Amino acid sequence: MTLVAYEFYWVSGSPNSWRAMLALEYKKIPYVSKRLDPSRGESKTPEYLALNPRGKVPTLVNGAFVVHESVAIMAYIESEFPAPALFGNNSSATGLIWQRILEFNNYARDPMDDGVSRPLIRGQAGTAAGEIKAAALQSHKALKWMEGILNVTQFLASDHLSAADFNAIPCVQFLARVGRGADALSLQLGLDALGSSYPAVSRWIARIEELPCYDAAYPPHWRDFSFHKN
Amino acid sequence: MTLVAYEFYWVSGSPNSWRAMLALEYKKIPYVSKRLDPSRGESKTPEYLALNPRGKVPTLVNGAFVVHESVAIMAYIESEFPAPALFGNNSSATGLIWQRILEFNNYARDPMDDGVSRPLIRGQAGTAAGEIKAAALQSHKALKWMEGILNVTQFLASDHLSAADFNAIPCVQFLARVGRGADALSLQLGLDALGSSYPAVSRWIARIEELPCYDAAYPPHWRDFSFHKN
Repeated sequence: MTLVAYEFYWVSGSPNSWRAMLALEYKKIPYVSKRLDPSRGESKTPEYLALNPRGKVPTLVNGAFVVHESVAIMAYIESEFPAPALFGNNSSATGLIWQRILEFNNYARDPMDDGVSRPLIRGQAGTAAGEIKAAALQSHKALKWMEGILNVTQFLASDHLSAADFNAIPCVQFLARVGRGADALSLQLGLDALGSSYPAVSRWIARIEELPCYDAAYPPHWRDFSFHKN
Repeated sequence: MTLVAYEFYWVSGSPNSWRAMLALEYKKIPYVSKRLDPSRGESKTPEYLALNPRGKVPTLVNGAFVVHESVAIMAYIESEFPAPALFGNNSSATGLIWQRILEFNNYARDPMDDGVSRPLIRGQAGTAAGEIKAAALQSHKALKWMEGILNVTQFLASDHLSAADFNAIPCVQFLARVGRGADALSLQLGLDALGSSYPAVSRWIARIEELPCYDAAYPPHWRDFSFHKN
């Protein structure tokens, strides 16, 4: 008898990895952790590129089956382990959860992640200040949209936690973390006080931070090092 | 007894509208067609913005329930009308279909749609030639990725039609249509002969064009007018 266990390939601090890992931890699915260090080329080895030809993370392997793209991994494990549900228990709930995922990924993710967080982490505050400021304005617009929702419901698709929350939280936490850094402050992006600017978003973050799965999936290198070392 | 029917708000030629309409037609779901003309401001009326605050299309209304974002609409109707399945009948199939949808939308859609098709339709060939050429290179890279898949399987996620195919076909057809236009030819984008450059993609297009739902969902203004009038 062969015991097949999930293997989960991920990079610490990658919002895409974090999202899928939250879903695995929330559903208490056992998996073998395969943490990759991209600075050592571990996401571009021939072995890894055979699983994920673009060399992106995360990737989930279940025996002969391989699936990548973080949202697809969430949908796959929902189908394998339906309870506790992350995509709703009826059509309307499912439809709204997917709507919120797509809205976040179509209108919020790119300005937050590619527009602000990654350029700042890469030290581009001096060379790309204009683009970063423009993306920060779009990120504020997205945060206002979230604030409007979270003034009405506890989570992004209803009063119940769902995949829509796991989809969004890594990008928002990444933005909040980078937004407190010296470069963000010098560019006056206004992202250093989410608690007072967006109180409902802030309460939502606190609600997710209290979940046991949040601690289990927290990026380890965010614990290991101080912010300016990252 | 109240008979509730779907109302589907859409714009002719919008890839997002087309994708969702293909799914409705394929599943033979009855709906009331609400075609909007954005040139007359019909997607920005207070009534429509109450359904879809960004004024985007498509939107599906089922009684009191409203869902937008085209991929979310496909997921919603799959949950309401599971057969014939568009998201697979087992976990692996579902996972791969979602992976293909996310791969297309993360790596192919933006260069094709926002990078090439829309700027050319808007007459920006003269003012944004460099950006359009760069996006065309990315679009070719995406078409090569599709060609690799479609050399092995009949459709994007297996030998069975799925939501991954409906997700991709509108953007590819939009690109193929615009790619044959005078502006694309003058920029030498190499998008005017998909049949010889990408034979497997071309056979896939032909396979989808043969479906009854394809004809039913075909953008009516693409029939009504010649290309250069659009």
